[in-house]
Amino acid sequence: MSKSIFYHAGCPVCVSAEQDIINLIGESNVEVVHLGDDKSRISEAEHAGIKSVPALVTPNGNVLHINFGASLADVKG
Amino acid sequence: MSKSIFYHAGCPVCVSAEQDIINLIGESNVEVVHLGDDKSRISEAEHAGIKSVPALVTPNGNVLHINFGASLADVKG
Repeated sequence: MSKSIFYHAGCPVCVSAEQDIINLIGESNVEVVHLGDDKSRISEAEHAGIKSVPALVTPNGNVLHINFGASLADVKG
Repeated sequence: MSKSIFYHAGCPVCVSAEQDIINLIGESNVEVVHLGDDKSRISEAEHAGIKSVPALVTPNGNVLHINFGASLADVKG
């Protein structure tokens, strides 16, 4: 199985969801991307269809927006 | 690991998310509850902290609201 990608921005909602996702699907199955630390990947996240963080992109490209931490516009600042 | 519970109400967003969640965490690790068909479990979902469907309750009791299909109020009708 290819990896899922979990995008977040360090917000409390994000960190909590990150732990839940890692517990559920396994740390080795998910790449965690912190868009606040790595702004170069924001355009990648936008292209994947992400509107807010935290969000998980599944191996088949579906976007699961999980709870709501911040809009991507806020992350871009 | 105890099971997660995925609550939904049959909406297109719910069905899509259900497939993604089952693919990610495995069918044997998640109980799927259709609140439209089984209204007796709506109070259980409310008690768990669910505000909208689809939503996943993790084995440790955290609620992950995934995308947005319908508010629980709409499901109650």
